[in-house]
Amino acid sequence: MGKKVLIVYAHQSSGSFNAAAKDVAVEVLTAQGCAVEVSDLYAMKFKATATAEDITGEVKNAENFRYAEETKLAWEEGKLSADITEEQRKVTEADLLIFQFPMYWSSVPAIMKGWFDRVLTLGFAYLQEKPYSHGFKDKKAVLSFTTGYHESTFSANGINGDMNVTLWPLQNGILHYCGFQVLAPQIFWAPAHVPTEACNTMLEAWRKRLPGLPEEEPLAFTPLDYFDLEKGFQLKPEVHEKHATKEFGLTVGTHLGKPLPPNNQMKLGV
Amino acid sequence: MGKKVLIVYAHQSSGSFNAAAKDVAVEVLTAQGCAVEVSDLYAMKFKATATAEDITGEVKNAENFRYAEETKLAWEEGKLSADITEEQRKVTEADLLIFQFPMYWSSVPAIMKGWFDRVLTLGFAYLQEKPYSHGFKDKKAVLSFTTGYHESTFSANGINGDMNVTLWPLQNGILHYCGFQVLAPQIFWAPAHVPTEACNTMLEAWRKRLPGLPEEEPLAFTPLDYFDLEKGFQLKPEVHEKHATKEFGLTVGTHLGKPLPPNNQMKLGV
Repeated sequence: MGKKVLIVYAHQSSGSFNAAAKDVAVEVLTAQGCAVEVSDLYAMKFKATATAEDITGEVKNAENFRYAEETKLAWEEGKLSADITEEQRKVTEADLLIFQFPMYWSSVPAIMKGWFDRVLTLGFAYLQEKPYSHGFKDKKAVLSFTTGYHESTFSANGINGDMNVTLWPLQNGILHYCGFQVLAPQIFWAPAHVPTEACNTMLEAWRKRLPGLPEEEPLAFTPLDYFDLEKGFQLKPEVHEKHATKEFGLTVGTHLGKPLPPNNQMKLGV
Repeated sequence: MGKKVLIVYAHQSSGSFNAAAKDVAVEVLTAQGCAVEVSDLYAMKFKATATAEDITGEVKNAENFRYAEETKLAWEEGKLSADITEEQRKVTEADLLIFQFPMYWSSVPAIMKGWFDRVLTLGFAYLQEKPYSHGFKDKKAVLSFTTGYHESTFSANGINGDMNVTLWPLQNGILHYCGFQVLAPQIFWAPAHVPTEACNTMLEAWRKRLPGLPEEEPLAFTPLDYFDLEKGFQLKPEVHEKHATKEFGLTVGTHLGKPLPPNNQMKLGV
């Protein structure tokens, strides 16, 4: 199809399930004509920490260094470090981004958090006064990850709580915030704790999903025009009225004091 | 009081609001007799990424390197790297941990995520078969952070969604999971976007809260004995029965298909 795909991949070992999931994605998407780039963060020894060294030359205010403002200026002036600039090129060219990682502490590993912190700079990826709309509206992004616990423990009935809630800061707070269309996550439940056969079944499901991934419909978030974007970024009163009699809230975050819409961060059309 | 306090601090600049909040904590807690240690992560150039170098000597399985298992073994054999061992000493000695940071992408900055990923190792901080109970039940922990948006945007009516949801993966998924008693977060709303006077007011509120912090009551999470810990880690049927007629769910994660208990991750006694 000629789509461009960027896989941001974070696992230390080529023998891991995450490596296999990444390899399947490269294989299937390449076979159907996509141009696939992989940012193998550990292999690249990707710098995770946001420091003044991310700006070449003098910073604007060394006494009171503010990362977002300094990197915005550096981005405008072409003074971001070479590694950030290269990742931003990949993002700019990509139609689809796949983040492949083992879930560490209910989130991405620090090396991938560092990719978010350093690559998605102010100006390039977002503007505070235009949340959820700047940047990447023509691009899709999907989280593909392994967990350490079985699926049932991540339900509203399980000890780890609802996975939809765990995913909200990543999917809404990062991806949707930058304007990406967020595809339903690909979750590989506890591959370290199931038989090889079950691992293979999970990989096969991924293999089957991949060809359609670039054209998949995204998850639903609260439409931007539901909020008063001119002042305060609050839900408009008419939205409350319109949804007063509905059973569920709008999203996990915008729940209107109602039950969370089930699987709001996991499945399409809910 | 003789309490020991560890402040894990992540800001690049000593001129920042976060530095001021950290300094106030050191000053107030020291003045009342606490022994305060600070892990100034940027100043320490703390390594954020979880790699095989965190283990001194040979790893057990280089072909299929698994960080959790390898660091568990290294911890048992005293082979964790010196920087991790030193941070674990500080955690072991501390009665209270304060995490001071600017919120980056709805979470902690990568350098602090790296502290969680590397310091809170399997065996030392948690056991997968004993979730939410191993380790640190006699210790308290509190998130103290700055945001980039005003408080109203982080309500269930605001564009960023309910802050209680954003905090769940950090407070439940990391701190409560390790057994810490989680104190209500100290949130400094948008100090970069309010007048100096308002910043000072926020710092003064922190200064007033600090003396009582070591004795503060923690936030409520779903009691462990509500779950079947022998098999499946699911809520017991009798809990469903007991809570069938209640208006709210138990926590943000364990919401029982009901509205989230308001401010469940923000305030005591809700």
